[in-house]
Amino acid sequence: MMPTRSACITLDQADPLAAKRSAFLLPEGKFYLDGNSLGALPKNVPAHLVNVVQSEWGQDLITAWTKHGWIDLPSRIAGKIAPLLGVEPSALIVGDSVSVNLFKLVASVLAARPERRTLLCLADDFPTDVYILQGLVRLLPGITLKCVTQETLPQALGAEVGVLLLSHVHYKTAAVQDMPALCAQAQAHGIFSLWDLSHAAGVLDLDLEAAGVDGAVGCGYKYLNGGPGAPAYLYLAPCWQHILRSPIQGWMGHAQPFDFSTHYEPAPGMARWLAGTPPILSLAALDAALDCFAGLDMRLLRAKAQALGDLFLSLVEAHLPGEFAIASPAIGQPRGGHVSLRHPNGYALVQALIARGVVGDFRAPDLMRFGFSPLYVRYQDIWDSVAILADVVATQSYMLPEFQTRGKVT
Amino acid sequence: MMPTRSACITLDQADPLAAKRSAFLLPEGKFYLDGNSLGALPKNVPAHLVNVVQSEWGQDLITAWTKHGWIDLPSRIAGKIAPLLGVEPSALIVGDSVSVNLFKLVASVLAARPERRTLLCLADDFPTDVYILQGLVRLLPGITLKCVTQETLPQALGAEVGVLLLSHVHYKTAAVQDMPALCAQAQAHGIFSLWDLSHAAGVLDLDLEAAGVDGAVGCGYKYLNGGPGAPAYLYLAPCWQHILRSPIQGWMGHAQPFDFSTHYEPAPGMARWLAGTPPILSLAALDAALDCFAGLDMRLLRAKAQALGDLFLSLVEAHLPGEFAIASPAIGQPRGGHVSLRHPNGYALVQALIARGVVGDFRAPDLMRFGFSPLYVRYQDIWDSVAILADVVATQSYMLPEFQTRGKVT
Repeated sequence: MMPTRSACITLDQADPLAAKRSAFLLPEGKFYLDGNSLGALPKNVPAHLVNVVQSEWGQDLITAWTKHGWIDLPSRIAGKIAPLLGVEPSALIVGDSVSVNLFKLVASVLAARPERRTLLCLADDFPTDVYILQGLVRLLPGITLKCVTQETLPQALGAEVGVLLLSHVHYKTAAVQDMPALCAQAQAHGIFSLWDLSHAAGVLDLDLEAAGVDGAVGCGYKYLNGGPGAPAYLYLAPCWQHILRSPIQGWMGHAQPFDFSTHYEPAPGMARWLAGTPPILSLAALDAALDCFAGLDMRLLRAKAQALGDLFLSLVEAHLPGEFAIASPAIGQPRGGHVSLRHPNGYALVQALIARGVVGDFRAPDLMRFGFSPLYVRYQDIWDSVAILADVVATQSYMLPEFQTRGKVT
Repeated sequence: MMPTRSACITLDQADPLAAKRSAFLLPEGKFYLDGNSLGALPKNVPAHLVNVVQSEWGQDLITAWTKHGWIDLPSRIAGKIAPLLGVEPSALIVGDSVSVNLFKLVASVLAARPERRTLLCLADDFPTDVYILQGLVRLLPGITLKCVTQETLPQALGAEVGVLLLSHVHYKTAAVQDMPALCAQAQAHGIFSLWDLSHAAGVLDLDLEAAGVDGAVGCGYKYLNGGPGAPAYLYLAPCWQHILRSPIQGWMGHAQPFDFSTHYEPAPGMARWLAGTPPILSLAALDAALDCFAGLDMRLLRAKAQALGDLFLSLVEAHLPGEFAIASPAIGQPRGGHVSLRHPNGYALVQALIARGVVGDFRAPDLMRFGFSPLYVRYQDIWDSVAILADVVATQSYMLPEFQTRGKVT
């Protein structure tokens, strides 16, 4: 039973999140299905950024650090992200990148428990997560990295494991991990469970505290819409906050950075995870972007993302039976905010779709990813996008040479 | 022989850099003498940033990574900074902070030469430099940190030393190190010489290659005017580029980040020093800000900064004999772009000066810093600022209670 376009419009009219779409600048004539990679521009960001640049930096110059609270931005922004993760604002800090934050956290856990020398992750996790662990193995003596599959993960848990690193939502498939169950399994072995929330925060209703997460990181530029390369966040459960300290002892993590003492003393709270002077302009964009989430019930976002993905899959199944292998959880199964299809001509198909205004992305070797940010993607956009996909396939327009040449896509 | 105000105006008229001032937005009624801490806003930055946000991010979204070359920004910006340092563009990369870049470089040198376990720095260097080394001592087994004085530095050099970390211009005094001599001394002992150029780049005529520097880092927000917390840069002499690799193996440093391979392979050139996805908006501001330096003879900048500092010292000496201890190199002695005076009431004096429009900063316990960015500070500004300083001292207006309470200053 294939939904009609007018049925989709009816769904949009009943959508409790429908009004949120007007908070975003969305280009005319495009269906933007890549908010899982780079979130769309919230309309309040440009004016805020111009004010920070022209008035705060331009007019108040160095005094803006205190006058406009730049110095507190990493913790102020954390206060806006905390409700999306289900954590206390005081357990979160914003700064650096996911890669750097992962490095800091894993190194600090290894230092605190030198008897646990094994790091554990999934072999097919997002590359930066695996690379960071590989780098720590090179740097620190006696550390082993075990890359396992989802199936062999339970047997790999043990007293020698220091950190289990997992992505809550898989960057390719959007499969969702059972966070409470895995945290409990890790905890039973005394393992520090560390979560990459990059593809989960802002689209799922997370409750890290209830799940028993030890530590987490995530980026600011996907569903949080903070802009390209927006700074990342770092969470630490309260029980760890006084035990762990960053190996990258930059001055902004000092208890009294402006005393310019010669001895490093980590700040008492999460500020100790800051390193150098943070990029205020990128932080300012993230700060404004997060206003979209103020007061939102995250269960609405999860439900809509799930419904958009389910709709997409049902339309693909109806219009294009057998054309694609479905790489994502099936209709009705828990999923993050994106859906991936496999096709031998996936790269060319994605390029042909972009030329027609349907913006998804491609992940080697054959994955076509489509993201459904519930703040601004409509049910009718899904219908129109699948109609265009069906046309591109039917006309084989993706076979044109212009769509075959590989470029970089992020 | 005290210069008159009209003599200062004559100097401004003859200043070959005079026209550069109009490239900056400078607030009315202020004498901004803190460009050594946060550079003033170049007028071309706001429009550039609005374009990156509204048009590139807002309209082109994920495709902007290639369409607008975001992916190459770290190396493109390096190309603009390279002439300021006297290095090849291919030997430089922009990203992360000074703190993170120092961590990466020092850790990588230690890993490459495990027989050298001692780190060497000056005890009174900028705190983040010392803190980062202290953090590496905590993290890595068998590493020792020796913090020495300038006088005892030569004796501390030896075959056990892996890295000598120095600031080219001291953050408090603006004293300039003899870079070629110290590089030669380090090299004679096989020591990797690592330089923090934060207070030097953009105000001195540097020639890292001729000096024999092994590695260097520096921030983008002081004399480079890249905005608050602008990303930092990282330099590596060609002979080291194939030997060293970053311990923070983020995906952007991978040879083929978009292959999403499970094995980390460092990029062939300086791109291997990238870690996570870089903060594009902060990079974009730095990118535009650096246009001020295009084609500039850096010797003009050095000469003017020296002349401004000399003028300041001669006016202070003439108007306020004996009032301050001079913490910086004397008139005619090589100096960076700032001058520091010592006074028991330094904190209150700086606050009283800010209230009168003369913006310098304070560094505990008793240092008043005044920076003379040669791109936008005029000789007449120095004259007027010292006249106000003399008035604040004569009237003792700094003794007012409102100027006594300590706040954070950066």
